[in-house]
Amino acid sequence: MEPAQSFQVPLKTIRLTDGTEYQSYHTEGALSDKQPSDYKNGIAKLRQEWIRKRLDRGDTNHSQMYYAKQGIVTEEMRYVALRENMNPEFVRSAIASGRAILPSNRNHPELEPMIIGKDFLVKINANIGNSALGSSIEEEVEKLHWAVKWGADTVMDLSTGKNIHETREWILRNSPVPIGTVPIYQALEKVKGKAENLNIQVFLETLEEQAEQGVDYFTIHAGVLLRYIPFTANRVTGIVSRGGSILAKWCLAHHKENFLYTHFDEILKVMKKYGVSFSLGDGLRPGSIADANDKAQFGELETLGELTKRAWEEDIQVMIEGPGHVPMHLIKENVDLQMKLCQEAPFYTLGPLVTDIAPGYDHITSAIGAAMIGWFGTAMLCYVTPKEHLGLPDKEDVKQGVIAYKIAAHAADLAKGHPGAIERDNLLSKARFEFRWEDQFALSLDPKTAKSFHDETLPQDRMKTAHFCSMCGPHFCSMNLTQELRKFAEEKGIGEKEALQVGLEEKSKEFLDQGAEIYSAP
Amino acid sequence: MEPAQSFQVPLKTIRLTDGTEYQSYHTEGALSDKQPSDYKNGIAKLRQEWIRKRLDRGDTNHSQMYYAKQGIVTEEMRYVALRENMNPEFVRSAIASGRAILPSNRNHPELEPMIIGKDFLVKINANIGNSALGSSIEEEVEKLHWAVKWGADTVMDLSTGKNIHETREWILRNSPVPIGTVPIYQALEKVKGKAENLNIQVFLETLEEQAEQGVDYFTIHAGVLLRYIPFTANRVTGIVSRGGSILAKWCLAHHKENFLYTHFDEILKVMKKYGVSFSLGDGLRPGSIADANDKAQFGELETLGELTKRAWEEDIQVMIEGPGHVPMHLIKENVDLQMKLCQEAPFYTLGPLVTDIAPGYDHITSAIGAAMIGWFGTAMLCYVTPKEHLGLPDKEDVKQGVIAYKIAAHAADLAKGHPGAIERDNLLSKARFEFRWEDQFALSLDPKTAKSFHDETLPQDRMKTAHFCSMCGPHFCSMNLTQELRKFAEEKGIGEKEALQVGLEEKSKEFLDQGAEIYSAP
Repeated sequence: MEPAQSFQVPLKTIRLTDGTEYQSYHTEGALSDKQPSDYKNGIAKLRQEWIRKRLDRGDTNHSQMYYAKQGIVTEEMRYVALRENMNPEFVRSAIASGRAILPSNRNHPELEPMIIGKDFLVKINANIGNSALGSSIEEEVEKLHWAVKWGADTVMDLSTGKNIHETREWILRNSPVPIGTVPIYQALEKVKGKAENLNIQVFLETLEEQAEQGVDYFTIHAGVLLRYIPFTANRVTGIVSRGGSILAKWCLAHHKENFLYTHFDEILKVMKKYGVSFSLGDGLRPGSIADANDKAQFGELETLGELTKRAWEEDIQVMIEGPGHVPMHLIKENVDLQMKLCQEAPFYTLGPLVTDIAPGYDHITSAIGAAMIGWFGTAMLCYVTPKEHLGLPDKEDVKQGVIAYKIAAHAADLAKGHPGAIERDNLLSKARFEFRWEDQFALSLDPKTAKSFHDETLPQDRMKTAHFCSMCGPHFCSMNLTQELRKFAEEKGIGEKEALQVGLEEKSKEFLDQGAEIYSAP
Repeated sequence: MEPAQSFQVPLKTIRLTDGTEYQSYHTEGALSDKQPSDYKNGIAKLRQEWIRKRLDRGDTNHSQMYYAKQGIVTEEMRYVALRENMNPEFVRSAIASGRAILPSNRNHPELEPMIIGKDFLVKINANIGNSALGSSIEEEVEKLHWAVKWGADTVMDLSTGKNIHETREWILRNSPVPIGTVPIYQALEKVKGKAENLNIQVFLETLEEQAEQGVDYFTIHAGVLLRYIPFTANRVTGIVSRGGSILAKWCLAHHKENFLYTHFDEILKVMKKYGVSFSLGDGLRPGSIADANDKAQFGELETLGELTKRAWEEDIQVMIEGPGHVPMHLIKENVDLQMKLCQEAPFYTLGPLVTDIAPGYDHITSAIGAAMIGWFGTAMLCYVTPKEHLGLPDKEDVKQGVIAYKIAAHAADLAKGHPGAIERDNLLSKARFEFRWEDQFALSLDPKTAKSFHDETLPQDRMKTAHFCSMCGPHFCSMNLTQELRKFAEEKGIGEKEALQVGLEEKSKEFLDQGAEIYSAP
């Protein structure tokens, strides 16, 4: 057992006008007060001492699972236990069994630990990263900041353009959340974009380079096996994962088995050394409604289950990536099969989009699927922005994507009955009912937008206490009426059951005596 | 049997660059080419002759159910059969049994008939209407036009401000879709906003006035019974339906049973005379997650089931309104209970919102619930705009609400396996896969937005044929690779199964021979 220590975990306190305080899970953490001009200095290194101690005593496996399996509750585990309001021992056992992961590279001391698993709050990931066609390093760090400001729990840097290494360095040094990457992208750049020239050496070199920088989890498409590729031949949209298509190209060019699969043991060694977690990629995920739940997809999933076991034997943490595009009635099958084949390793899905017909609105088509798959047991939801299928997301797209996914994740927490999840809904609805407009705004996912929508028609300050809004106007505000109803009941000291028994006669009389006027425009 | 006649039903033809044509269900109909300056003239009166004939022969019940029960397939039924690609007899029997309704007032000849029922395409409703605090008549007709342009299947005019009668007249004369209202709003205006002064006379007068104008369905809160009101006392948000709160106020003020319930027979007479359909209102629907599926809500639903039977005895068509705010795990219970209690009368729900914490984004929180409840059997989904809970929606809000609900309704059609629903998804995904960008835009719910998102980073015309977008860039486009894979398979004349058997050896050789280069930037 490592020595006890007291932590401060990031929380956002929302103070309401009635004196109530609500503590909100907070992902922005140490980046909160950072200005763009100060990005070059990075943020505080919370984990530095914890890691140093492990290095000092010569630990060679830095995976949290390694410690968990020995019964050790690490500082990281205690930190997430505090964040999630869970027992540290419960956290440890979830990590030990593989049902949850705590992505944490030993070279990412800036990380404020978080946990991914179906027994915890549903998490969301935001993808950032430049492509060959756009955006600077500063812009990418700003996107990271923006994404965690709105609530992203992890961020994947999917850069494929210039300055990959430097962009990633800046991102890591400023990131309070786990950073994931898809190392095959950079490996491909190293062989000048020719997939057939890829090999395990250049891949391991890239892995080591990125792990050394502090990347917390790697998407690795080791399940794209040669024998599954022909299953994609009759698909409407073939292979839609970038990594999947690169590996498929390599397999076909050499007519050999995927080198990530055949050299999986060597990959494990790098993961172990730095404590990097796997996000086993679904290179054959469906890219359209027509291709959902097909042989290619489920074949690969079976292999991911096999790889999960191998990783766990070496105490490496694993999560499993999932689709994609799936109509509602086929969503549950994905979770059930993943749970079975991968023995409850956390599922991490992209949406899924429940229809293909709304490019420009795929944050919505996918939030529907994401909420449902989260309810069914998916541990982390990878966001989709309105630009999906069309172009590279900008800051506003990142915000829209994150908010749609905060909605999906929270809806899933509610449906799963996660302890405490409903508290924020109740506080907000109570504030709404009591016309505490400022509290309603403060408790919402995007206070500024809520307030500005309200103010479009009723900008005056006195309207922040008005007992109606412009939607219905003063004479038709239903909330207003019910408040009066309740007041009567309270004054009479009668509850629901009694009210039924004594009838409402007296109430009725009093109501009329008072002028029967309950609507009052301020 | 009425004489056969040929119809033209509104369809939107989307012509693709590969010669394919896709026919899309079209709600804008006769309003398509109308300019705002021409609203005063109204649109063509498609049903004029059909109705005249019925009046000439002295029909006194103008409900479609009345004809359906006698085995008569009306012009309206044949029209919707054509629109939905269904057998007219199937349409008739669905209406006769009450499982579907065809809202159509005999004084709304401009109506282009449509059907609402779980065996048909899932429909969506858009609410418009001024409040005491905003918007002109022209603005409201423009909102109607805008709503049907984006795909609203019915429109409710919820005006409560000045010029209620005149606003409604303009809306009806220009509406190709059924118009619904909540007559109690206008009745309340007639008694100067004092709910306790309402009575059945002023209500029936209002009903007659609106029916005479041509309103196709009325929301009537006849299920808000005195005995259910105390059940709302301990709710977080009490009564949130405007109509529900007005009736509750009346019941309490007089300590009498809801006059809409006690005088239901008189209401039936007006409905019958004009052929107006019921939308039995859920005045006690939950307004927050905490209040979902409670005694007040389900008590009222039981009464709505009883009223459904009574309306059916008089051959009046009925649909049943539903919630509101419901967490995902409690959604299905709503549909199952409604189906049972109301004997499969069409369900018509507002969302439901699956969380309360995102004011400003409630088109998204509710599209999640709407998609799910549509899949479970709800026939029509009432949209929610981003302004919900905050203010009166403007044109842009109407568009955002309608599109979010087109997504939800279509996702539900896909999940229900509605015949033909997947065709548009497949065409769009195929266009996406083949880099027919213009076709992808044309097939999407909002072509302009999809195109503008694409063009933000790649505005050049040649990029409309590029084999990539700015999201991944030319070297990482997975779609591009798969196309090459497929080309090889086709050239070899091998299918999926054979490919497995013969292996990929030959393909591999050829691939390398050709330079193994499949990415080509234009």
